[in-house]
Amino acid sequence: MSAETVASLGSAVHAASTALSRTSGATRNRLLRVIATKLRDHEERIITVNREEVERATAGGLSAVLLDRLKFTPQRYRQMIAGVKVVMALPDPLGEVMERVKRPGGLRIEKIRVPLGSVGIIYEARPNVTIDAAVLCLKTGNSVLLRGGSEAIATNRALVEILQQSLRTVGLPAPSVSFIDSTDRSDVLTMIQQSQSLDVVIPRGGKELIDYIRANALVPVIAHGEGNCHVYVDAPADLSMAEAIVLNAKTQRPSVCNAAEKLLVHKRQAAKFIPRIVRRLQEAGVEVRGDDQSRLLVSGIIPADDTDWRREYLGMIIAVHIVDDVTAAIDHINEYGSHHSDAIVTRSSRNAEKFLHEVDSAAVFVNASTRFTDGFEFGLGAEIGISTQKLHARGPMGLRELTSYKWVVRGKGHVRK
Amino acid sequence: MSAETVASLGSAVHAASTALSRTSGATRNRLLRVIATKLRDHEERIITVNREEVERATAGGLSAVLLDRLKFTPQRYRQMIAGVKVVMALPDPLGEVMERVKRPGGLRIEKIRVPLGSVGIIYEARPNVTIDAAVLCLKTGNSVLLRGGSEAIATNRALVEILQQSLRTVGLPAPSVSFIDSTDRSDVLTMIQQSQSLDVVIPRGGKELIDYIRANALVPVIAHGEGNCHVYVDAPADLSMAEAIVLNAKTQRPSVCNAAEKLLVHKRQAAKFIPRIVRRLQEAGVEVRGDDQSRLLVSGIIPADDTDWRREYLGMIIAVHIVDDVTAAIDHINEYGSHHSDAIVTRSSRNAEKFLHEVDSAAVFVNASTRFTDGFEFGLGAEIGISTQKLHARGPMGLRELTSYKWVVRGKGHVRK
Repeated sequence: MSAETVASLGSAVHAASTALSRTSGATRNRLLRVIATKLRDHEERIITVNREEVERATAGGLSAVLLDRLKFTPQRYRQMIAGVKVVMALPDPLGEVMERVKRPGGLRIEKIRVPLGSVGIIYEARPNVTIDAAVLCLKTGNSVLLRGGSEAIATNRALVEILQQSLRTVGLPAPSVSFIDSTDRSDVLTMIQQSQSLDVVIPRGGKELIDYIRANALVPVIAHGEGNCHVYVDAPADLSMAEAIVLNAKTQRPSVCNAAEKLLVHKRQAAKFIPRIVRRLQEAGVEVRGDDQSRLLVSGIIPADDTDWRREYLGMIIAVHIVDDVTAAIDHINEYGSHHSDAIVTRSSRNAEKFLHEVDSAAVFVNASTRFTDGFEFGLGAEIGISTQKLHARGPMGLRELTSYKWVVRGKGHVRK
Repeated sequence: MSAETVASLGSAVHAASTALSRTSGATRNRLLRVIATKLRDHEERIITVNREEVERATAGGLSAVLLDRLKFTPQRYRQMIAGVKVVMALPDPLGEVMERVKRPGGLRIEKIRVPLGSVGIIYEARPNVTIDAAVLCLKTGNSVLLRGGSEAIATNRALVEILQQSLRTVGLPAPSVSFIDSTDRSDVLTMIQQSQSLDVVIPRGGKELIDYIRANALVPVIAHGEGNCHVYVDAPADLSMAEAIVLNAKTQRPSVCNAAEKLLVHKRQAAKFIPRIVRRLQEAGVEVRGDDQSRLLVSGIIPADDTDWRREYLGMIIAVHIVDDVTAAIDHINEYGSHHSDAIVTRSSRNAEKFLHEVDSAAVFVNASTRFTDGFEFGLGAEIGISTQKLHARGPMGLRELTSYKWVVRGKGHVRK
C-alpha cells in the first residue's frame, strides 16, 4: 500500500469521526445490533475464509501458538458476537456531565464527556480483536483505523466488510471503520505518523512492536505494554493462600500479560514455602528458575541469570527470588517490574498498605491473584487493552478510556476583566 | 551539556519521584511554605540577577516583547510568591478514591489518584514559570526536570537554587527539581527521549517548538498548543453583546493563546455588524483582514489570503469571514481552527446547542469571550498549561491533570477461575 493510500484512509477515518461524534447513543446501539446480526448471518462464510487462512498458514509453517490464536472455532466466533451484545448493553458514556460549576461572575461551566475522535489500533494474530476493538470504538463515537496481523489478513478483511455493510445499513459513513489491507510493515510507520488524522494509536502486541511504535509515532500512543508481574509472599502470610495465589497467577493462563512471572519470598518464609511451592509449580509443568539462595533450599531450580528479573516469559516459567523484607520486595518490583500488576500475600495490614502505596504499578493486589487485572473483572464491562503507562489511562481500558472531554461554557455576554 | 549529563539528571529526577510519591500532603505544603519564604528572603538577590540578565539581553538585541517577558518587576515577583501560596491552599488531589467497587466475588477494588511520577517542562522566556511549574508538580507529588529559555538562564538558575534549598530544608531530595543548565538545543532532544526517566513532557511555547517535540519525543507529550480561536456572530444575535465579546476576545490581551484571531459573521448580520465592529476594532488599534465579501461592506479591510484562516497572530490582527449559517461556521472552525477555544454569540438556543455539540474544541462558549479559557477562570485554582490535544487532559490543566491513578485491589485469597 502506498503512503498516499494510508494517508487517504486516515483522512477518511478522520472525516467519519465527525459524523460519528454527532450520533445518538441509540443510533450507535442500533449499529451494534446490526453488526451482531450480520456476523451471525455470515458465520459460515467467515469461518470458511478463516479455515482457508489457517490452512495456508499451516502450510507456511506458522507456529502452533499463532495458529491457535488465528483460528475461529464456532465457539470463539459466537463468543465474539456475544461480546458485541455485552458492549451494546453497557451505558453510553458520551454526554456525561463530569463536572458542573457556576463561577462567581455567573458563567456556567460544564465538563462533558466526548469521543476521542479517530483511533488507530495495531494488533497481532487474533481476528476477534477486529470486531472487539471496532465495536468499542463505535460504541464511544470514535472512528477507527485497523491494522491487524498479516497471518489474519483474509479473515480481518471479511470482518471489516461486515462492519462497513453495517455502517451503511444505519446510514453512517463506511470509513468509520477502515482497514489497512496490506502486510507491508512500512504502512504501520505511515499510519502512526498521521497526526492530522488520528487522535491516538493503541498498539497491542509484543515489546518489539510497542517500542517501535513509541519511537516512531507522531500520533499520541496508549501502549498495552508487557506484564512482568510479581507475587510477593510476606513473612506473616497464610502459606496455603500463598500457594493457591501463586499457582493461579502463574498457571491459570500463562500466555497473558497479567500472569505472574516472578515469585518473591520473605527470607523467614523461604525454607518453609519455597520447597513446597516449587514442587507444586513443577507438578503443574512450570519451569522454576531462582537465585542462589533459593537453589540451596530445594533441588531442581534452574539458576536465574541477570536478564531473568526483567523478563516477561509469557509461558510456563517463573523465577524465584528471596528478599529481606517488604521494603526489599517493593524496591525489587519497582526496579525490575513493568508496572503492570503485582501482588502481596500477607497477614500484616501494615505491610499490605505499604505495598499498595509504594509499588508503582497499574494494579496492586493484597491476597489476590494478579490475573484479576482485566476490564471485565474490574467491572468496566469491556476492555480494549491494559495500559502500562500513566498518561490518560492506566490498567484496564474500557469505554471511558476511549473518551475525552470538552469544556462547555454558557454566558450572558460575559467578557474578561 | 553532554547527553550523559542530561540522562543522569533524568535518572536523579526519576529516583526523587519515588521519595516524593511517599510524602504526605502536609509535608508537600510545608515545602511550598518554605519555598515562598525563601523567595521572599532572596527577593533582592534574584531581582538583581534578573536585572543583570535583562541588561545583557538588551545589549544583545533581544526584542522588546521578549525583554518584557524576561523582566521581574517587584510586582511580578510578589505575584509569583502569592501564586505559591494559592497552590498551597488548594486541596490535595492525591489519595482521592476516584471509584470504589465491590465485585460479586467479594474483591474490593479502588481507583486511587497518584502522582504522574516525573514531569519534564520545556518553556520559553518567562522566568516565573520556573516557580509556577515546579510548585504545581511538587504539590502533586511529582518531581520535575525543567528546561527554560536561554534568555532567562541566569534567573532560572537562581530560582532553582532556592527550590533545591527548600527541598533540603524539609528533608526531600534536591533533584526533585532539576534543571538543564545549558542553552544547547540538543539537550532538549536528549531530554525528550528519556522515556526510562520521565513520565510526561509538557512543552509550552510556539508551534515550531511543539512540532519539534511531538516529532522527536519518546516520552509522552501533553502539548500546550496554539490557539486560533474564533468568535461567530449568529443571525439572531444581540449585536451590542457581540461587539463587547469580539472586542474583549481580541484586544483584552492579544498575545495569549485564548485571544480571538478570527471573526465569523452570519451573512444576514454582515451588512449591519461588520462596518460597526471593524470601526471599533480599528479604533482599538487592531488590523482587520477579511474575505472579499466583507471588504465590499466597509473600507479599510486588508485582503486575507488563504494562509490567514489557519494562522495564530498572537497580536493585534483579526480576520473576518462571512458564513451562510451556523453549520458553515462550525465547519469552518473545525477545518481551520486549532481546537482551542471558540465562541458563538446568538439568541437561538438551538444554534447555541448545535455549536456547543459540534465544534470540536477544548472549550466552546455561548455568549462569552474566549478569554475565559484559563485554569483560574474555570475554577481549577491553578494552571500549568492549556492542552489542545484530547488525550489525558484537554483545555486548562490544573492539579488533577498532573496526576494518574492506580487500581488497588484487596482480596481474601481470591484466585481467578
